[in-house]
Amino acid sequence: MTHLLLAGFPGTDAPAVGRMLAARLRLPFLDAMTLDAEGMAALIADETSAVVTVDGALLTAPDTLELARRAGPLVRLIAGAMTPSRRAGARTGTRPEQKVAEPLAKMREMLESRQSAIPPGDIEVDAMTLEPVEAVEQVLDWLNQVRVHLGERAYDIRIADGCHADVGPFLARLPERVSSVVLISHRSVYRHYGDAVRAGIEAAGLPCHALSVPAGERYKSLQTAGRLYGDLIQRKVDRQAVIVALGGGVIGDLAGFVAATYERGIRFVQVPTTLLAQVDSSVGGKVGVNHPLGKNMIGAFLQPRGVFIDPRTLDTLAVRELRSGIAEVVKYGVIADGDFFGFLESHVDHLLRREPLAITHIIRRSCQIKARVVEQDEREANLRAILNYGHTTAHAVETYTAYERYTHGEAVAVGMVVAARIAHALGLLKAEPVHRITRLLERFGLPTHLPKADPGVLMSLMDTDKKAVAGQVRFVLPTRIGEAQLVDTVPNDVLRRAIKESLEL
Amino acid sequence: MTHLLLAGFPGTDAPAVGRMLAARLRLPFLDAMTLDAEGMAALIADETSAVVTVDGALLTAPDTLELARRAGPLVRLIAGAMTPSRRAGARTGTRPEQKVAEPLAKMREMLESRQSAIPPGDIEVDAMTLEPVEAVEQVLDWLNQVRVHLGERAYDIRIADGCHADVGPFLARLPERVSSVVLISHRSVYRHYGDAVRAGIEAAGLPCHALSVPAGERYKSLQTAGRLYGDLIQRKVDRQAVIVALGGGVIGDLAGFVAATYERGIRFVQVPTTLLAQVDSSVGGKVGVNHPLGKNMIGAFLQPRGVFIDPRTLDTLAVRELRSGIAEVVKYGVIADGDFFGFLESHVDHLLRREPLAITHIIRRSCQIKARVVEQDEREANLRAILNYGHTTAHAVETYTAYERYTHGEAVAVGMVVAARIAHALGLLKAEPVHRITRLLERFGLPTHLPKADPGVLMSLMDTDKKAVAGQVRFVLPTRIGEAQLVDTVPNDVLRRAIKESLEL
Repeated sequence: MTHLLLAGFPGTDAPAVGRMLAARLRLPFLDAMTLDAEGMAALIADETSAVVTVDGALLTAPDTLELARRAGPLVRLIAGAMTPSRRAGARTGTRPEQKVAEPLAKMREMLESRQSAIPPGDIEVDAMTLEPVEAVEQVLDWLNQVRVHLGERAYDIRIADGCHADVGPFLARLPERVSSVVLISHRSVYRHYGDAVRAGIEAAGLPCHALSVPAGERYKSLQTAGRLYGDLIQRKVDRQAVIVALGGGVIGDLAGFVAATYERGIRFVQVPTTLLAQVDSSVGGKVGVNHPLGKNMIGAFLQPRGVFIDPRTLDTLAVRELRSGIAEVVKYGVIADGDFFGFLESHVDHLLRREPLAITHIIRRSCQIKARVVEQDEREANLRAILNYGHTTAHAVETYTAYERYTHGEAVAVGMVVAARIAHALGLLKAEPVHRITRLLERFGLPTHLPKADPGVLMSLMDTDKKAVAGQVRFVLPTRIGEAQLVDTVPNDVLRRAIKESLEL
Repeated sequence: MTHLLLAGFPGTDAPAVGRMLAARLRLPFLDAMTLDAEGMAALIADETSAVVTVDGALLTAPDTLELARRAGPLVRLIAGAMTPSRRAGARTGTRPEQKVAEPLAKMREMLESRQSAIPPGDIEVDAMTLEPVEAVEQVLDWLNQVRVHLGERAYDIRIADGCHADVGPFLARLPERVSSVVLISHRSVYRHYGDAVRAGIEAAGLPCHALSVPAGERYKSLQTAGRLYGDLIQRKVDRQAVIVALGGGVIGDLAGFVAATYERGIRFVQVPTTLLAQVDSSVGGKVGVNHPLGKNMIGAFLQPRGVFIDPRTLDTLAVRELRSGIAEVVKYGVIADGDFFGFLESHVDHLLRREPLAITHIIRRSCQIKARVVEQDEREANLRAILNYGHTTAHAVETYTAYERYTHGEAVAVGMVVAARIAHALGLLKAEPVHRITRLLERFGLPTHLPKADPGVLMSLMDTDKKAVAGQVRFVLPTRIGEAQLVDTVPNDVLRRAIKESLEL
């Protein structure tokens, strides 16, 4: 089961923090400080989600650490990180209030920089300097928020039950004045969540225009954008307005493109309601529309001012859309975090059952991984392209089947298997991880075979994908579970063979 | 007549520099170092363009300075600016080669920072430290190039006869690889200049696709952009390609918008061939298309990598288009540089005759003024809006007449008069400058009256213009010739009266 593990190190009262945290999260609390590694393994296999405190010393063994990280979010409660700063403060006679403020600021900085490595992993909280109630707040902040560090374009992704109500107050607090809010959504999405978002916006004193867009990838077009521009002009929406995208990836990409180009760019906020949008398209600032000759060929980079994810929106999501979102989640495990991949292997049933702690964990970890990649390469000069794992083939498959047979996530699942096979054929990846990737996708009910097609046709459709550099098709190839690289030089015969091996019977 | 004045200060051999400069520019040289202020005034009235050296001491009198600046480009040849640096270098035992390199770099820096004030004015060249041949190069650099300082988005505007041939070599030298070049133009423009630009690109070893767009503002649309995206996709144009816009403002805005949005943004270069595009739309990074409900409502900010202006393209420009461009040139004088306005008053005939030194001077000075404004406010948070002087009314007039009766520049001319009248009604501007503005526009053959229309209709059309903030119409109002400010609070009755006064009979 998914657990929130608190690993207590000497000098911290982990059970005190754990008990308060469990109460805040409405989860059972288990004090397992005295368990050994074996006992911890047994407890992790337990079928009830809980906040569990374990002995931090157990994590020094790599096996136990991996096990712990496969169980869910991992918090290390440590002591002493602040002690040197405090002493320094005392020596130089700093004023009393700075004794608290400085170490806190430094700690935040330290935590943020530690979090900026890939994989993003778990956090450390100083449970000696902080009161338990402060430590609990810090853990909750970490659980509920992922910051995307992009200088003046930095923003927070909020991941919390009921956070749709926070959109209005957030907009009202923006540093630059908001004249009006344009809520762009799809009718059926609006029926579920529109009123709550709109009520929050209007309660914050902001006028709100609600606009509806038909559902479906084919409406992610210049024509629909043109209609939306007209709606904005007719409503006299000005440059101080903010667009709020409420819906899945189509809504986010389309509304974001309109925000990027209406009056040369206005602000926007993402409120994604599908798993795919929550873990992928709403983070990172890629917005755009399709052209009849190619998907996502028209677009821009526009970072949202904020992203609001309520994991409960997934309760009403069609199971096929849930699985499709999970395909992108598996992708993050493969390219950046082997332990997270292990978590997914251990939680297939829980995720398909939409167990809240597990769902929240995959959203947060996916957003963290994507945020860290985007921070290092916002405009996809290089590194960011690893997020396209599975996508070279996926776009060819989607074009070939006219976007009708596969969802995007399903096409990505197939593409990940093809890429893993190419990696194996090139000697970059062993056979066992190819099998693990394929097996995990199958367990999630995702397709792992290409549609019956001439391999040459699929290959030619890869050419027009925009990841191609100078006519060369670019592949992201895993080198182990948790690591991938860009390869521009996949020989045609290797590609052809991998496609043939992946065709459905 | 337009003269290139070299004001020699003590310690410089101005005639030596002037003689070489005149030879390079193929202009007569006049040594007038011994003339007094009265003699200088007589000489400036002379009808032959020339490089003229005058006594720098004359410029200490404001009257003579103004007179000199109205004559054309003004270069101050000074001595001694470098002396302290040289001494410092000698004291600290700097290596010999640094003795030259350091002061030169410092001088460039100093010159650039002095140039960054508004109005951009004239330059200083150290004619003692530099050899005459170096001083000449520096003056030519200044005459032929305007740098837009925008950090990592900085670029040069090259203004020189025959510079279309430089586009290819420039692209080949870009730091990031160019896979291909897409030359977007209009058939009749391509016929004049396309082959020269294309030959330079291909001689530089770059593949070049030439695409044609129909002429006219109504083709600056999402539909035309959609067609161009399709052309690019079919030609497998990738993210390493560069778009070159060859033509007037419609071509530049449209091709720039396609560059800003194709595959989320590729690089682009402007080669403007109309005066309007050369002094306005090609500089500053505003790109976009029209919506049936409003002009320029869809767009982005994308700075070009370079701008190449050949003033000889104006030789073949229709006279009505020349006058239209001059309207924007007059705008720069009104909002930022009274002396430049004076130059225009003294050179109406020369400009309409397309006298080369006068034409080059207005292009350069306009680009300088626009560059200095854009550097301070790239995304039009505030200051940049002063460039919209005349435009609030212009857009209403263009919409009212369905873009058929007035060119953009003609509509701006009318709008400038309306704004000047509003400024006068509000007590911000005296009557005499209102008259000077109106008179100068008339002398250039530009309209200064609104079409017969109901003032209320024109006022309502101003509302949808995107310069409106929170529903309030924003005006740029001159406060004297050479200075303007933004006013959001023009009372409706003042606006209505200014419109009525400006209606044609």
